[in-house]
Amino acid sequence: MVRPVALTLGEPAGIGPDIAIAAWLRRESDAVPPFYLLGDRAFIAARAKLLGVDLPLADADPGDVSGIFTEALPIVPTGHPTTARPGHPDHNSAAAVIGSIRQAVNDVVAGHAAALVTNPIAKSVLYRAGFAHPGHTEFLAELAATNGQPPQPVMLLWSSDLAVVPVTIHLPLREAITTLSSRMIVDTTRIVVAGLRTRFGIPRPRIAVSGLNPHAGEDGSLGTEDQTIVAPAIATLRAEGIDVKGPLPADTMFHEAARRTYDCAICMYHDQALIPVKTLAFDRAVNVTLGLPFIRTSPDHGTAFDIAGTGRANPSSLIAALRLAARMADSTHLA
Amino acid sequence: MVRPVALTLGEPAGIGPDIAIAAWLRRESDAVPPFYLLGDRAFIAARAKLLGVDLPLADADPGDVSGIFTEALPIVPTGHPTTARPGHPDHNSAAAVIGSIRQAVNDVVAGHAAALVTNPIAKSVLYRAGFAHPGHTEFLAELAATNGQPPQPVMLLWSSDLAVVPVTIHLPLREAITTLSSRMIVDTTRIVVAGLRTRFGIPRPRIAVSGLNPHAGEDGSLGTEDQTIVAPAIATLRAEGIDVKGPLPADTMFHEAARRTYDCAICMYHDQALIPVKTLAFDRAVNVTLGLPFIRTSPDHGTAFDIAGTGRANPSSLIAALRLAARMADSTHLA
Repeated sequence: MVRPVALTLGEPAGIGPDIAIAAWLRRESDAVPPFYLLGDRAFIAARAKLLGVDLPLADADPGDVSGIFTEALPIVPTGHPTTARPGHPDHNSAAAVIGSIRQAVNDVVAGHAAALVTNPIAKSVLYRAGFAHPGHTEFLAELAATNGQPPQPVMLLWSSDLAVVPVTIHLPLREAITTLSSRMIVDTTRIVVAGLRTRFGIPRPRIAVSGLNPHAGEDGSLGTEDQTIVAPAIATLRAEGIDVKGPLPADTMFHEAARRTYDCAICMYHDQALIPVKTLAFDRAVNVTLGLPFIRTSPDHGTAFDIAGTGRANPSSLIAALRLAARMADSTHLA
Repeated sequence: MVRPVALTLGEPAGIGPDIAIAAWLRRESDAVPPFYLLGDRAFIAARAKLLGVDLPLADADPGDVSGIFTEALPIVPTGHPTTARPGHPDHNSAAAVIGSIRQAVNDVVAGHAAALVTNPIAKSVLYRAGFAHPGHTEFLAELAATNGQPPQPVMLLWSSDLAVVPVTIHLPLREAITTLSSRMIVDTTRIVVAGLRTRFGIPRPRIAVSGLNPHAGEDGSLGTEDQTIVAPAIATLRAEGIDVKGPLPADTMFHEAARRTYDCAICMYHDQALIPVKTLAFDRAVNVTLGLPFIRTSPDHGTAFDIAGTGRANPSSLIAALRLAARMADSTHLA
């Protein structure tokens, strides 16, 4: 029996239901692994009807999914009726959104699901309903806390061409520079190396670390942080036996021949990491959270309220997220 | 008669002579336009011998080049004997390097050459010989000065996939942020638009301007510069009738579908511009200087002293620079 992947509802007024339906419809052509959606069957049936899709649905337990999946999209009910219209976020959806995430985490922690894939949420909807976490990933870390101590999650953007990790993420560029520290680079890279070993089955991950400044500072003439912050972090990591090189000039580390020399690039700020991966693999990049005690991936886009319910949503990133989650679950068995 | 492209010697201890020879050898397979090298025939003959290449050379005047080019690499003598060994920069080369540039500029200004392509130089060699310009491009701007006023050069990185212009270039990232101004963005973009019109034959260039911060600042929550510096520059340019959009989130503006919507991306700092173009077109990117009263391109790499004279230098970027220069000369005739 193949354990299924658990897919959360996400924001029901967004494209999450649309791409979940589209991914199931492409299960054969795109080799989508067995998954189930944690949500409300009547709501998904209504969205399918709106999309003009004749969609067989089946209420299921996680354990039934692999037997059902070829014939119907398995729905594991969460007990939260959902009514939001596409493009019209409704704070009454908050309980369904949060309930779906909680139940999915329980499933994956209990071993009923092999991995967790999350559909995009709308934080503003949840905040109005009293959601007190900075974001989706932080909420998952809270749910995964042991002895009240949440693990430190790390965001990895994965595609078959390139995997990148930004050390600083959603900060003004000016603040990213002043916030960056050797400690952050070391902590992030350790979590990445552990994740590549246990989740991707790479026994000795090869890490490339970018410089902060152009030409990685060119011996200090183009900025000192590469010498004072990045290089010491790399020395610490190397002393731990990690296969790491850098600080590398960021502009020359992402072409095809360069990419073959490492498994993951650690970058200093958001655009330095996301420009190359989205340039190469815009529709196929998957967001992976490392550092959690379970596998979690998600499509690399938002709720796209403007096209929800229209049939124009592209399921490529969700399909890539489902496939990668299943592959990671296999690697985890191997590791 | 096709007017030839003038190619400077560049640093003779670097790979410039190697890639010039390699480009001529590939003149048929790679459709390299007629060009001549401004240098010392005995020196080029010696380098060819070192490389194991049986290279026909012919002393020439620019006017003879198109008749000679299929049979021999045309050399226009500069009167500076050159002796530097590969990988061993020698300050005695400075007169030859500078003389080659001066004479090439004279040729292109006088109309004997259609365009100027420059081989990489080693500034440290020239500084020791009293060269007083910050760089290659600034020296060309000085040579192009009218009434003592040099034009403002703008660096464009061109490939068939993507053209980008960094508004700030060789500055520490921290300084790039504090140096960036609406005025710089406006001045740079005006020169780019004029250059795309007159040198690339694009009557109404479509310009995309990146934001400085992640997500272009997300309405100020991820930094204010996109609202206070970038957006006002775009408003000014639009009021002049320029087809310009932005500030765009930098991570989502370089994938294939996005690239089809503009002719050139104006970026706020070095890596934001150079990461995408070198990720997509590492060996094929060409450095173009806009704003000069003549066409100038150059390969997008340095002197590579470590591989000079070994036969390992890749001429792809020089060949792309020669081809683009000839194409720009044609567009200039059309404009």
